[in-house]
Amino acid sequence: MSISRFADPIDRLINRLKKLPGVGEKTATRLALYILNSSRAEAEELIRSISNAKKNISLCPVCFNFSDSNPCKVCRDEKRDSGTICVVEGPADFLAIEKTGKYKGKYHILQGVLSPLDGVGPEEIKVRELMKRVRDGNVNEVIIATNPSVEGEATAIYLAKLIKPTGTKVTRIAYGVPVGGDIEYTDEDTLGRALEGRRDI
Amino acid sequence: MSISRFADPIDRLINRLKKLPGVGEKTATRLALYILNSSRAEAEELIRSISNAKKNISLCPVCFNFSDSNPCKVCRDEKRDSGTICVVEGPADFLAIEKTGKYKGKYHILQGVLSPLDGVGPEEIKVRELMKRVRDGNVNEVIIATNPSVEGEATAIYLAKLIKPTGTKVTRIAYGVPVGGDIEYTDEDTLGRALEGRRDI
Repeated sequence: MSISRFADPIDRLINRLKKLPGVGEKTATRLALYILNSSRAEAEELIRSISNAKKNISLCPVCFNFSDSNPCKVCRDEKRDSGTICVVEGPADFLAIEKTGKYKGKYHILQGVLSPLDGVGPEEIKVRELMKRVRDGNVNEVIIATNPSVEGEATAIYLAKLIKPTGTKVTRIAYGVPVGGDIEYTDEDTLGRALEGRRDI
Repeated sequence: MSISRFADPIDRLINRLKKLPGVGEKTATRLALYILNSSRAEAEELIRSISNAKKNISLCPVCFNFSDSNPCKVCRDEKRDSGTICVVEGPADFLAIEKTGKYKGKYHILQGVLSPLDGVGPEEIKVRELMKRVRDGNVNEVIIATNPSVEGEATAIYLAKLIKPTGTKVTRIAYGVPVGGDIEYTDEDTLGRALEGRRDI
């Protein structure tokens, strides 16, 4: 709509909020009105938290996760196995794996995925930096946990080809039926992979 | 989760974003990571739009809508019929009615709804201010457009009882079947009201 119905500062706030991922016109309006209704202290805290995060967070020069220290606390953690590196596309994937509580190694955040159609080649993501870690460190295993998408799969294959000649073990996280899922409603690709990946019980 | 997996400034940003309406842990994380990935200029624009809106917007002293002028642009608009006042609960309702393009009168934003259980009585919302406008101005009709909820209905009845003795006409927006809705799936209360409110065609 071109006709502005609220005062300009509200419209500008709504338009800005609409740029956030998954936020449409209605959500942006609801958020803007909520912010306007909130106390000055609350709004200032929101502003401060955005500003502090932007100011104090940069990429860890080792694993390329968001961090407020150099290196980040995961890379610094001596209780974690530095012989294992789990490779993920982005920080949200790192968080998902951490939440399992099953992984005690280190990470490497690619900050993207190979996607030639979007002009993303190995130079645009942190591939060279991963290879440096594999060559320089005492790395026993690289677990590739890119997404089970076309790009994630292509990236996994590309990385495996690069890493294997160094003699380091390369693994890919398992495909299969999601826990709690229905075999009846699982797509054929996933079910095929689940059969291929079957294990003794 | 008590164990912080990201750096503190990120966790603080996520926790702050979680206080926004309709934003849970996952959405807050996605928004925080998006903000961290965005350029400094983009983040600054977001901060500025929040800060400008908070600084420049206050309640119009006439209709109590959010406004950056006194009175607001709707109250100032001489092309709008000041003999008709549409009473709504909040600014989002004002916006919804404006978007119909069907209403050319003025508004009164109650900034809430009567809800005795939550301790909201007539003094907590803009009832007195509405009555002052009804008594002082040349108001011909007050259209009550509070929500079709228990509280909205109670507020409508309460306001009607206050306004009627002044001789001003009081109306309530129609209940009925939503346009494009299915009669088959319409709840019995709504369908009952739609029958009661039937009109000649």
